[in-house]
Amino acid sequence: MPFELHPQLQADCYLLGQINGTRLLLHKNALIPWFILVPDTGQRELFKLQAAQQTLVQNSINQLASFVEQHFNSDKLNIATIGNIVPQLHIHIIGRKTSDYCWPNPVWGQTDSREYQEEEVQAIRLALVQHKILNSPVS
Amino acid sequence: MPFELHPQLQADCYLLGQINGTRLLLHKNALIPWFILVPDTGQRELFKLQAAQQTLVQNSINQLASFVEQHFNSDKLNIATIGNIVPQLHIHIIGRKTSDYCWPNPVWGQTDSREYQEEEVQAIRLALVQHKILNSPVS
Repeated sequence: MPFELHPQLQADCYLLGQINGTRLLLHKNALIPWFILVPDTGQRELFKLQAAQQTLVQNSINQLASFVEQHFNSDKLNIATIGNIVPQLHIHIIGRKTSDYCWPNPVWGQTDSREYQEEEVQAIRLALVQHKILNSPVS
Repeated sequence: MPFELHPQLQADCYLLGQINGTRLLLHKNALIPWFILVPDTGQRELFKLQAAQQTLVQNSINQLASFVEQHFNSDKLNIATIGNIVPQLHIHIIGRKTSDYCWPNPVWGQTDSREYQEEEVQAIRLALVQHKILNSPVS
């Protein structure tokens, strides 16, 4: 079945590109560096992926977590698969700072938000290419 | 450095045993099947573990997630490393049902709770041994 991004993820996020066949999204809430990985699978749980795909996804999580920590100087990473509302398997990778808008609470359920400027999103795309997380910023 | 469980995790959880050197805890809130894995490390992030230990921990997550889904007939697993409040690396593995007390919200930040009966905890320990997640229910 061809990959189709869930409409809620389409609405909430920018598509930045792909890492090893997994879509990389940026959540539109610019208050916090909030990335989402969407593997190409019909499974709803990470542990149900075949071993090879799970390893690829785990490697992408590692790469992205390391990038977020360095690039945004994060104090803590929050990494989660929840999916109670959006059934399509997706992994949140969020850079937290002790000074951020909702620390130490998790971001889910918070309502504050700020929109990105286009230049900010471009700068993030560029940094991801420079850190070799994305080969190319186009999807 | 000898392993020491963070006092907050000690207070909030029952220690059920060990999987490959990783402590397995049961959160005391009986409203929901809520397990926590605590690897033996001083690192605060899963992605910073050495590859061999990370693989062991990922395998333990997979095993436990599969057990929780089957044993509690969960509709969705919520799996997360947050650690904004408790710095010791710990992984939440929570079985969710569409009928549970706070669905579809994440459990973090919810205040409702119920205490386990001792027999309920023993039944969970026994099921973990029967499913070969724990070799022995003692820590």
